[in-house]
Amino acid sequence: MSEKSNARDLIVGTAARLFFSQGYHATGLNQIIKESNTPKGSLYHYFPQGKEELAHECIQAANAHMMQKFEETFAAHETTAEGIQQFIYDTANEAEASGYTGFMPFSFWAAVETSCISQQLRTASQNVFAEWQDIIAKHLMLDGIAEEKARETALLVISLMEGALIISLTNQDKQPLLTAADYLSVVARNAEQKQ
Amino acid sequence: MSEKSNARDLIVGTAARLFFSQGYHATGLNQIIKESNTPKGSLYHYFPQGKEELAHECIQAANAHMMQKFEETFAAHETTAEGIQQFIYDTANEAEASGYTGFMPFSFWAAVETSCISQQLRTASQNVFAEWQDIIAKHLMLDGIAEEKARETALLVISLMEGALIISLTNQDKQPLLTAADYLSVVARNAEQKQ
Repeated sequence: MSEKSNARDLIVGTAARLFFSQGYHATGLNQIIKESNTPKGSLYHYFPQGKEELAHECIQAANAHMMQKFEETFAAHETTAEGIQQFIYDTANEAEASGYTGFMPFSFWAAVETSCISQQLRTASQNVFAEWQDIIAKHLMLDGIAEEKARETALLVISLMEGALIISLTNQDKQPLLTAADYLSVVARNAEQKQ
Repeated sequence: MSEKSNARDLIVGTAARLFFSQGYHATGLNQIIKESNTPKGSLYHYFPQGKEELAHECIQAANAHMMQKFEETFAAHETTAEGIQQFIYDTANEAEASGYTGFMPFSFWAAVETSCISQQLRTASQNVFAEWQDIIAKHLMLDGIAEEKARETALLVISLMEGALIISLTNQDKQPLLTAADYLSVVARNAEQKQ
C-alpha cells in the first residue's frame, strides 16, 4: 500500500470509528486529522467537500461490511430464518463485548442524524436500507416465499433489528436483541409455511 | 402564569424543539437562549447544571406526553391490538404531516446519542422505555394475556415501533410504520388467542 492510499485509509477508518462512537455532529474534522495522525492537507486532498463527503464514504464502507456479513451468514445456514436469527445474535454479542459503548447503530448516526441536514446522506442511507431489504427478501424468496410477502417480511426484519439494537444499547442489555432474533426466526419460518 | 415560570417553560419548550429537530450535540445553550427570547441568566438560574439537566427535563416531558397518548389511545379502543395499531398510524401521519423533518424519534436523540455521553441521561431513557413496555404489557394483560407473554410482546412492540420510525424518517415514506402497525396488531391479537 502506498503512503498516499495509506493516509486515505487512515482518515476513513478514523472517521468511521468516530462517527460510530460519537455521532456525526459531535465529530469534527480536526479530531479526525489529529487521531488519524495524517497531515492536515491529506483530508482536504482526498475529501475536498469535507465532512459530508467523508461521511458518505463511511456509509458506503459500513454498508459493504454489512452486506458481506449478510451474505456469509445466509450462506452458512440452511434457512433464511436461521440466518436472520444468527445475524442478530452476533450483533447482540458484539454489543455486549463492546460494553454497549463505542458503537452506534448505522440507523442512528447515518440515517437519522444526517438525514436532517443532508439530502445526499439521507439518500445514501435510504439506499443502504433498500439493499438490506433486498438481500433478505432475495433469500426468503429462495426459500420459496412469494415476492410481496418476502419484501414485507424483510422490511419488518430490518425495522425490528434496528429498533431492538437501539433499546439494547440504551439499556446496556442484550435481551431486546435476543427477543427480536428469536421472534424474527419464527416470523420468517411462518412466512414460508403459509405459502 | 408568572413571568418567571413563563421563562422556564419557554426555555424547556425551545430546548425540546431543538433537541428533537437537530439532536443533542447539534444544539447549543446559546441557541436555546436566543430562540427562547429569554435572558441569558434565566437558563442558568433554572438549570444550573446546564445542557444535561435541561435534556433530562425534556426527556421527562416527552415521556409524560407519550404516556398520556398511550393511555388515551388504549382507552379509545376495545382491544390493545387495535390501540397499538392506531398509535403507530398516528405516528406515521404526524411524520408525514411534518414532511419527515423537524422531529427525531425519542430513541434517537435521547436514548442513543446521550447514552454515549451521560450515565444520567442513559438511565432516564432506559426508564422511559421501561414505562412504555409496562403500559403496553399492562393493557395486554387486561386483555387476558399472561404476564411473561405480555411483557415480551410489549418489548417487540416498542422495538419495532422505534425501528420503523427511523426507517420511515430516513426514507421519507410512512410505509415502514404502516407495515409495522398492521403487523403488530396481528401479533397482539395472536398473543391473546394463544392463551
